[in-house]
Amino acid sequence: MSSTTGQIIRCRAAVAWEAGKPLVIEQVEVAPPQAMEVRVKILFTSLCHTDIYFWEAKGQTPLFPRIFGHEAGGIVESVGEGVTDLIPGDHVLPVFTGECQDCAHCKSEESNMCDLLRINTDRCVMLSDGKSRFSIKGKPIHHFVGTSTFSEYTVVHVGCLAKINPAAPLDKVCVLSCGISTGFGATVNVAKPKKGSTVAVFGLGAVGLAAAEGARVSGASRIIGVDLNANRFEGAKKFGVTEFVNPKDHKRPVQEVIAEMTNGGVDRSIECTGSIAAMISAFECVHDGWGVAVLVGVPNKDDAFKTHPMNILNERTLKGTFFGNYKPRSDIPGVVEKYMKGELEVEKFITHAVPFSEINKAFDLMLKGEGIRCIINMDG
Amino acid sequence: MSSTTGQIIRCRAAVAWEAGKPLVIEQVEVAPPQAMEVRVKILFTSLCHTDIYFWEAKGQTPLFPRIFGHEAGGIVESVGEGVTDLIPGDHVLPVFTGECQDCAHCKSEESNMCDLLRINTDRCVMLSDGKSRFSIKGKPIHHFVGTSTFSEYTVVHVGCLAKINPAAPLDKVCVLSCGISTGFGATVNVAKPKKGSTVAVFGLGAVGLAAAEGARVSGASRIIGVDLNANRFEGAKKFGVTEFVNPKDHKRPVQEVIAEMTNGGVDRSIECTGSIAAMISAFECVHDGWGVAVLVGVPNKDDAFKTHPMNILNERTLKGTFFGNYKPRSDIPGVVEKYMKGELEVEKFITHAVPFSEINKAFDLMLKGEGIRCIINMDG
Repeated sequence: MSSTTGQIIRCRAAVAWEAGKPLVIEQVEVAPPQAMEVRVKILFTSLCHTDIYFWEAKGQTPLFPRIFGHEAGGIVESVGEGVTDLIPGDHVLPVFTGECQDCAHCKSEESNMCDLLRINTDRCVMLSDGKSRFSIKGKPIHHFVGTSTFSEYTVVHVGCLAKINPAAPLDKVCVLSCGISTGFGATVNVAKPKKGSTVAVFGLGAVGLAAAEGARVSGASRIIGVDLNANRFEGAKKFGVTEFVNPKDHKRPVQEVIAEMTNGGVDRSIECTGSIAAMISAFECVHDGWGVAVLVGVPNKDDAFKTHPMNILNERTLKGTFFGNYKPRSDIPGVVEKYMKGELEVEKFITHAVPFSEINKAFDLMLKGEGIRCIINMDG
Repeated sequence: MSSTTGQIIRCRAAVAWEAGKPLVIEQVEVAPPQAMEVRVKILFTSLCHTDIYFWEAKGQTPLFPRIFGHEAGGIVESVGEGVTDLIPGDHVLPVFTGECQDCAHCKSEESNMCDLLRINTDRCVMLSDGKSRFSIKGKPIHHFVGTSTFSEYTVVHVGCLAKINPAAPLDKVCVLSCGISTGFGATVNVAKPKKGSTVAVFGLGAVGLAAAEGARVSGASRIIGVDLNANRFEGAKKFGVTEFVNPKDHKRPVQEVIAEMTNGGVDRSIECTGSIAAMISAFECVHDGWGVAVLVGVPNKDDAFKTHPMNILNERTLKGTFFGNYKPRSDIPGVVEKYMKGELEVEKFITHAVPFSEINKAFDLMLKGEGIRCIINMDG
């Protein structure tokens, strides 16, 4: 048992005091975990677009001060009452959505949308008592998606922690706790391209590149990357992308361009941008008879997906996925094992690294669209 | 070899001379089958809404005189050059769509949308020479969807004939060549409800009742029938329907009513009306996480399927199907076997019977919405 068990821990956290303003490294107090909670020492975290989106908080109810961060790897420091499957010292990835293992979704073979612990971006407190575990001089600081990994210590519901192989390097596999698994799972768990098939990936950010990696690993013979930013094309080759289409280069809808390139349409498409136009193109570019389109990107509130129903009736399939259909506790340890076996290449997603004290540099890089993932080393 | 082989056959056919006008039983000449064609003696045919739709020809380019009919059973009279897998005497069901067994669709495990022989409602002639095999005093009469079964003899492409068990009663299994297989296959091949699951069926005509029968056979625990016509509810019970919802009885969208009845949505839904509003309801009434909606009904030209993309992203699946995803030659013989083994009840779909000479009575019944299927006995 650690000497800190049951005690408040004082440590550094990067606090967002205001929307869009640089984070400030502060000394915070982290309360001990309550029932079904776990306190985790974060070793490495990375930055994902979702952090940026809620930090910018455009058009949102402001929920500040807040500790962001949800892609990370750490080690269990102590556990609360009722936690039986984790002990101090276990290596874990915190996940922004959970798995209670008791609701209809958790019991379903198909769903990972846990009723109890499904992502809730508005909730700023812990489930059990509606309170925050973070404070500065008694003033509570808000949580973010149940993870708040931009802190040396954080408290997470046990249902949002994947216990992983302790031999896995946390500075690498931390990226598997959100974007990479989302894209990779969208392909391997949902689109399921067969060997030799043709796959289109819309959006060549981290999620789209992970979707392409899934297609590469599945043995797709052609992987068509679609993006409005031609600068992304060269780097995407490492992820198996064989051809590129920039919708800006064409007067026709991109689905027509792709259908022409592929003798009627691709076998599978994966949409990773969140643009409604891309969603419709991704659906309409799959081949009739067998094509499957998978939507990953999160749309705007007022968007409408619209297509002629004959596009559906001609035996196309449209599916949505959330976190690559992975159940955090049951499935993410296996994704880490895929990396350990060399079946999923993680290093190529990691383009930058900064010490925790320079976390705002990671924000700058992402805002400029530079690189894919920046690892933040909490010990620096 | 029959004495008629290679000869023109003179026989009775019910000819539609004008849109919406009663058919007239005429003496027609039926030319011998050309390459890859088969001449079939029709013993029983039934009437399907698709015949009515093209006979009424509202808003269509008129293609008259024409011989309708596409749900039927018969016996091979003679075969044309190159036909190797059928011989005179074989029992067959003509199908409105075909299977060339050579195109990408036929070679795909998933598709039945043959490139060569996919339904074409505008084509009025045979593929090989662009001519009709029917004539009256030298004047050609148009074919309909390659089957034209309202004739004692017809000529069909070999790819549109399912060779079935000769022990199967043609006056029953003739209905398996269109609507019943379409609905049944939509459920068992595409929606694939698990034992104990909840299924909604939109539209309780022949296709919808066959979809319900598929759910019953699959062991669904609740089958919710949705129809604007409450008169259909009582009869639907025989097909396994356990509950009924009439959208007219509710001020809220029917998908909300169904979600409330089922703790969040049904596991599977099958849309068999062709109404765009029903298609959207059918999709939105399936449970997030695992729900699958299957569209069967044919929409209007100007319809748009429209939904909020979050309905898709929340792990719902939308699929379209055509002829229940059955490949006519490969799969329909097996559907007949299901009937022979008592796994699929066909008799309950057959509510009326008329002799061929009274074929217009079958049209009257369908126009009045009476009954499900009316068998037309060609020998009468």
